[in-house]
Amino acid sequence: MLTPADDRLAAMLPAGVLRDPAPHYTEEPRGRYHGMAGLVAAPRDADECAAIIRACAAARVAVVPRGGGTGLVGGQVMADGAAPLILSLERMSAIRDIFPEEAVMIAESGVTLQAARQAAAGVGRQFPLSLASQGSAQIGGVLSTNAGGVNVLRYGNARALCLGVEAVLPDGSVMHDLKRLRKDNTGYDLRDLLIGAEGTLGIITAASLVLAPVPAETGVAMLVVDSPAAALSLLALAQARMAGGVTAFELISGQSLHFLDAAFPDMRQPFAARPDWLVLVEVGLPAGLSADAALEGLFTAGTEAALVHDGVIAQSGQQGADLWALREHIPLANRHVGAIASHDISLPLSQVARFIDDAGAWLAGQGDMRVNCFGHLGDGNLHYNLFPAAGRTRDDYEPIRRDLSRGIHEMVVARGGSFSAEHGVGRLKAADLARWGDPARLAAMRAIKGALDPLGIMNPGAVLA
Amino acid sequence: MLTPADDRLAAMLPAGVLRDPAPHYTEEPRGRYHGMAGLVAAPRDADECAAIIRACAAARVAVVPRGGGTGLVGGQVMADGAAPLILSLERMSAIRDIFPEEAVMIAESGVTLQAARQAAAGVGRQFPLSLASQGSAQIGGVLSTNAGGVNVLRYGNARALCLGVEAVLPDGSVMHDLKRLRKDNTGYDLRDLLIGAEGTLGIITAASLVLAPVPAETGVAMLVVDSPAAALSLLALAQARMAGGVTAFELISGQSLHFLDAAFPDMRQPFAARPDWLVLVEVGLPAGLSADAALEGLFTAGTEAALVHDGVIAQSGQQGADLWALREHIPLANRHVGAIASHDISLPLSQVARFIDDAGAWLAGQGDMRVNCFGHLGDGNLHYNLFPAAGRTRDDYEPIRRDLSRGIHEMVVARGGSFSAEHGVGRLKAADLARWGDPARLAAMRAIKGALDPLGIMNPGAVLA
Repeated sequence: MLTPADDRLAAMLPAGVLRDPAPHYTEEPRGRYHGMAGLVAAPRDADECAAIIRACAAARVAVVPRGGGTGLVGGQVMADGAAPLILSLERMSAIRDIFPEEAVMIAESGVTLQAARQAAAGVGRQFPLSLASQGSAQIGGVLSTNAGGVNVLRYGNARALCLGVEAVLPDGSVMHDLKRLRKDNTGYDLRDLLIGAEGTLGIITAASLVLAPVPAETGVAMLVVDSPAAALSLLALAQARMAGGVTAFELISGQSLHFLDAAFPDMRQPFAARPDWLVLVEVGLPAGLSADAALEGLFTAGTEAALVHDGVIAQSGQQGADLWALREHIPLANRHVGAIASHDISLPLSQVARFIDDAGAWLAGQGDMRVNCFGHLGDGNLHYNLFPAAGRTRDDYEPIRRDLSRGIHEMVVARGGSFSAEHGVGRLKAADLARWGDPARLAAMRAIKGALDPLGIMNPGAVLA
Repeated sequence: MLTPADDRLAAMLPAGVLRDPAPHYTEEPRGRYHGMAGLVAAPRDADECAAIIRACAAARVAVVPRGGGTGLVGGQVMADGAAPLILSLERMSAIRDIFPEEAVMIAESGVTLQAARQAAAGVGRQFPLSLASQGSAQIGGVLSTNAGGVNVLRYGNARALCLGVEAVLPDGSVMHDLKRLRKDNTGYDLRDLLIGAEGTLGIITAASLVLAPVPAETGVAMLVVDSPAAALSLLALAQARMAGGVTAFELISGQSLHFLDAAFPDMRQPFAARPDWLVLVEVGLPAGLSADAALEGLFTAGTEAALVHDGVIAQSGQQGADLWALREHIPLANRHVGAIASHDISLPLSQVARFIDDAGAWLAGQGDMRVNCFGHLGDGNLHYNLFPAAGRTRDDYEPIRRDLSRGIHEMVVARGGSFSAEHGVGRLKAADLARWGDPARLAAMRAIKGALDPLGIMNPGAVLA
């Protein structure tokens, strides 16, 4: 049994780590969970973090780690049980070291993603993880949730960008494994076990991160396609033509464009008649190639193959940024409309187009609603969100909301897809994981959780319900 | 206490799985360990594999998984204790499926790396993992040891090329996780835990593998440099010029060339006077760029920066293959000479050149010997091998052999490097891991091993001594 974080625990903590338990420590962006805080503690280094964990273990108090608090599945807030200690990484916000010649950066967990990106840019490199929430999201959270974003197609998830971690394990020991090595086969992959474990197996306090060269030539285009199937064929064409040069390939639906019109009427859209489907293509190419010419070539080849009907190629950095802004404002436009339910799903690439057709057909039989399907097509990752029909409200759909999500997720799982592509499990999807997870895998997960955190103090209720 | 694999266990196994315990099942390439086999069993599918594991668990018999048997650290042979059951994956050798449009292949663990590469080539793709032993090495072993090779710089280790696994866990359950997804954040990363665990946490029976596009333009050059430091500067230059286009960057020492002369006198070498240091550069570029022009440009820029003194650029596929053949014959030439000790090490890139200097200086004080330092410079991965002085034999060095290796490894570890970059721990380096591994990480590894394999039947003695 866990006990509440109280004065008794406070007296056991290292001096000076307690923070005022301000409301933002118990909030999450969707407002679905109302978190509790018995205490808020912010360590200044891994040893102080370890001392806090040891105190919590001794007092049997739950620890909820807190980064930027931007997670969308409730992993950062505990809504019931004994009030936890919230462990904020906000004071561990140093870039400890940058090795430009190694293309490696050592960042503490409280560094925001944006600050990490700026630090990389400062030495002529890039940290190629890019999320809408990067101004707030912190490296520790980004790793603990194995965050994705728009450049996974080329550079991989957060997992692929981490060479090593410093972490505090549930027994209060500090694992020093900030390696800067591209090859190191010396035992079990604890790093990848902690990445994506959402704070349930330990606290990542710092990480050794991979930087990438800034491509000599970059370009952005927005191309009109008939269908998701055409978009996927265009993706294959682009990849065949540009080797690893396609750095983003985002699908945008006509519904996205209409929502942008409603939410941001002043935002300029490149196509007067809103097309049914668009793709946003970004390329990063070696010196000697013109990104403009490469995108022109893709446009021509796509047109000849009857995949592309119209398109714009950004002629300046500003134009490119404007095209990206359209994509990046879609989640805000969605919020403006108010979703009935949203789904962060992924599918095998060859199943994506069929799923969109089948899910649309199934939903049409469930009631009158609007679907905004958009996302990271190159990764098979769709944000498949349901909205009220015009003139209706989300409350009208409350009776069927859960069944709609269940139906969508069942169609995804049946096609070998995932019900959580990039957001993680948190508390929101712990029951989904219990339902759809492979039983042997779940049993192994529980065994590992029991072995590393026998007291069950680390972020209880997240991932494993 | 484990018991020997005997007739009692044989009677518990599924019908038809037993194989003749031929000598090759208990051999390893270095001949350092003389393995034992109580029984040899070869399942035809995961369920049969699971039944074998359950029988071994019930009888308390050790299981030693066997792929191609090419591992260099003794992970595939048990030399003492109760005779184990050797579990050969040789009959699980089907490519179950290929999805060219997804760039994914589902291969069983007994598929050789070469067969996997050929299957990918058959659909116009590549499986970009390339090892000298690929004709024998099998996918299961390649994953269980997280194998590396020459294209890690561009495509990553085996780990980076695996999207999911089917595996039999030590309790005899089958984990079905052959996902074909680029994004899937649904719980702990069991896949990466099994990858690199060298059969101590379960048996990978099949894997979902990433295929890559075949670059439109490829080229190979061999360039003469003054020093490893110059080679590293050239690498940075090449990467800045070609974004992700550098697919291999191998360091070759003058000693390598002399050993090649001795072992393969008919092999043509491009430079009459054997240089002290060479690099082999391979590039894979998008359509529209000429690999030849890119390598010419690198040569010119390298020359202007006083990094490169001479070079050849392959003018045909055959010439490129001939240059690669020189690199690939180095291990055979080494075997011809007979090493005192060999070290599969990695270092942070900025430490590589200094390490080579410092280690050479230290060794000069230890006795008269020859050093052949070569390997995957782009990954910071050196094969740093010691040989007798001309006219002497390896036996002359037997009294100091262990101290030499210990000294080398200590210098590596002190610089943040790894004592096993790509070969794994096996039995050969289990004591090294116990000595140099981070204590908190080792404790977590032992806890996980105890939780998943409480009877200790899975490849006992490998990784964790």
